[in-house]
Amino acid sequence: MSIPAAVEELAQRLGPRLSRAQSDRDLHGRSETHFAPMPPDAVAYPETTTEVAEIVAICARHGCPVIGWGTGTALEGHALATRGGVTVDFSRMDKVLELRAEDMLAVVQPGITREALNTELRATGLFFPVDPGANASLGGMAATRASGTTAVRYGTMRQNVLALEAVLADGTVIRTGTRAPKSSAGYDLTALFVGSEGTLGLITELTLRLHGQPEAVAAAVCAFPAMAPAVEAVIATIQSGIPMARIEFIDAASADAFNRASGTALPECPHLLVEFHGSESAVAEQSERFGEIVADLGGADFRWATKAEDRTALWKMRHGAFYAHKALRPKAAPLVTDVCVPISRLAEAVEETAADIAASGIPGPILGHVGDGNFHATLLPLRGDAAEFAIAKELAARMADRALRLGGTVTGEHGIGMGKLGYMAAEHGDAWAVMGRIKRALDPDGLMNPGKLVPGN
Amino acid sequence: MSIPAAVEELAQRLGPRLSRAQSDRDLHGRSETHFAPMPPDAVAYPETTTEVAEIVAICARHGCPVIGWGTGTALEGHALATRGGVTVDFSRMDKVLELRAEDMLAVVQPGITREALNTELRATGLFFPVDPGANASLGGMAATRASGTTAVRYGTMRQNVLALEAVLADGTVIRTGTRAPKSSAGYDLTALFVGSEGTLGLITELTLRLHGQPEAVAAAVCAFPAMAPAVEAVIATIQSGIPMARIEFIDAASADAFNRASGTALPECPHLLVEFHGSESAVAEQSERFGEIVADLGGADFRWATKAEDRTALWKMRHGAFYAHKALRPKAAPLVTDVCVPISRLAEAVEETAADIAASGIPGPILGHVGDGNFHATLLPLRGDAAEFAIAKELAARMADRALRLGGTVTGEHGIGMGKLGYMAAEHGDAWAVMGRIKRALDPDGLMNPGKLVPGN
Repeated sequence: MSIPAAVEELAQRLGPRLSRAQSDRDLHGRSETHFAPMPPDAVAYPETTTEVAEIVAICARHGCPVIGWGTGTALEGHALATRGGVTVDFSRMDKVLELRAEDMLAVVQPGITREALNTELRATGLFFPVDPGANASLGGMAATRASGTTAVRYGTMRQNVLALEAVLADGTVIRTGTRAPKSSAGYDLTALFVGSEGTLGLITELTLRLHGQPEAVAAAVCAFPAMAPAVEAVIATIQSGIPMARIEFIDAASADAFNRASGTALPECPHLLVEFHGSESAVAEQSERFGEIVADLGGADFRWATKAEDRTALWKMRHGAFYAHKALRPKAAPLVTDVCVPISRLAEAVEETAADIAASGIPGPILGHVGDGNFHATLLPLRGDAAEFAIAKELAARMADRALRLGGTVTGEHGIGMGKLGYMAAEHGDAWAVMGRIKRALDPDGLMNPGKLVPGN
Repeated sequence: MSIPAAVEELAQRLGPRLSRAQSDRDLHGRSETHFAPMPPDAVAYPETTTEVAEIVAICARHGCPVIGWGTGTALEGHALATRGGVTVDFSRMDKVLELRAEDMLAVVQPGITREALNTELRATGLFFPVDPGANASLGGMAATRASGTTAVRYGTMRQNVLALEAVLADGTVIRTGTRAPKSSAGYDLTALFVGSEGTLGLITELTLRLHGQPEAVAAAVCAFPAMAPAVEAVIATIQSGIPMARIEFIDAASADAFNRASGTALPECPHLLVEFHGSESAVAEQSERFGEIVADLGGADFRWATKAEDRTALWKMRHGAFYAHKALRPKAAPLVTDVCVPISRLAEAVEETAADIAASGIPGPILGHVGDGNFHATLLPLRGDAAEFAIAKELAARMADRALRLGGTVTGEHGIGMGKLGYMAAEHGDAWAVMGRIKRALDPDGLMNPGKLVPGN
């Protein structure tokens, strides 16, 4: 195994698009959260699938690790070069390759971001709904099985990736899935690659399901006197069958963070942020029924965002939550964690977590895509304070344990990366070993994003 | 390898629940369609997951093939014992183990049928939507990634199986997924097992997503003067964003078949069968908009099924299509095939197929879940007539080629089994070999449902 030999061969192949500059390596060795930097030995900037395949084949020949890179916004250290090697940065592969409005699908390269994609779609009457907080790349979103505020209505990346092209560990290029809306032709390799975090191969092209822009949209913010009735309102709304497009919970600390970051004037108490999509009459009906549920549970201070720009501001605020949270304690090294539980256990999961954080002394605002049973805590231990960091780690571990005890999962959308490897055995039992067997079958030398997701990797 | 030794050990373990009777072997060696019988050496009737694990472990030790069996209604020879061995019949594992209405999920054993499940759910206000024509078992439906008339609204088994328990080839029991609505914790093994056709293991428990029974339902049958405007109406409806719960196409021959089988009096021409789900006002609005599209395209003879029993009769008729088709030519050995294409290519796919069948001289009625781009032909060559059978095989092969040429898949919902193995290389290219690598990683001795789905199996 020789990383230097791989880097040398890649430099000859790619010229200036293989960077060994310290600044570039540092940039690709950092994460958004608390993980220590782990830079790669070099960063490659391919422009085509063929180049990606060549890069991977060269690395395979030299036993050099390969790590995919979208926008570097993963929260669990997914793209850190744990054993050095070459990071493949997809920023030059950021095109919409084909747009088939009549089939409601788009074929894109992995480096395009969700905002850039939706900008390109604007004139078509279609949109791509999956919206993690960051303006992430579609390749990264697929690799981490990302979701966001609209998953309650439109699904996560699991439901919205129809087909993929991927480069395997030996440089082979495969295609999974077709353009048909469904298929029962063999193993669902698309679903296997979505969420595989770059450990089985690199995604080089995605066929995405698009959705029609709704005829009418109504969004609102609504304040609650306490956490419990806000969460109960979510459960009641879901169970009443009102088709929410978005239903987000934020706690009092998050309201405060948004006021500081976005200049809003939300009362410092828990809120729900909601949105309805449909025909004019359907949206009116849904809004009215939701209003009744909220009123019954003591929700008040209902603010409707009727203009498109007000809604844009509302969701921009929500998508900026991580940065707003970080600004609450600028010297913190954030430990962001998410869990997901069955809807019926959401209230106890959120309340126990809030009480646990409150008792810890560490700031830790909570919010989440509660229509999915998914919520996040942004734990804010001071950078370099080992005692605080240990407390934050314990809080996160108890959140994960709590989610499992309640029948849920240790991560609803952030993924495993390095940060949650320690919970995989508890969540999956013997099924984790099955993931390891699949990994070894497709990447016997363990070169694709080592140190992530699978056992002993 | 010794099948007799495995059968002997199983007989000692299971007593009368291990059957070696010829009648039982014959029953489990037949398919609904044209495949030659291939009986297993014995049939096991387990009652618990532990027993299934013991059965599989015993078979593994003796190198004996293991084939899962639900209701035997697969259409591509999925459950035939190509190399003998032991068929595991799940009919004694047919319970609802847990029903969590507040989380809209049910935990069931694999042997329960879709109709039995919905009967048990009736009082809860919830239902399970996936409805292949046959009253299939949920385990079989998951194994074949089944869908049906409601997939256009509620998804296929891919979207409606939340978690699984499965017995692997060595007898290990694993659990995939949780009760949380979503997760990004590692490889999506649930999705990998859904559609794996028993080649990776046996499904012993399923956690299913349930849906709220709609407040209002409207169903209708509508006649068209020709195939083209009927298919165009489907495309226009989908693209206009009307949320159909069902939209089914039947050709003139199918209308005739239904009249004979169900005593209906449909005009002998193409029809659409549609259903809308939602609130009273939403259903009224959707019905009206659909009516306008149909009128523009020359649809007529609109019959609304306003009473619940009329709708039940309508969909019972539709679900009985395969048997109605068979009755058009009682001496036929049916070759039923399905393909799925992008919606924009549906019209040409259906019309070319219809013309091809018409020119062949073999009866072959067409119908389909056209909202998904999915349609079926029931080709009816005479049993024992080699020339007619060869013509039918060629028609099916051209349907598959056509679907691939139009960007689709060789099967939308029937699966691969033995019948479509020959198309896998054309559809998947190098990705088929990847399926083989996954298969060998989980079942190195190739004992789980041999001769199906994967290369060289």
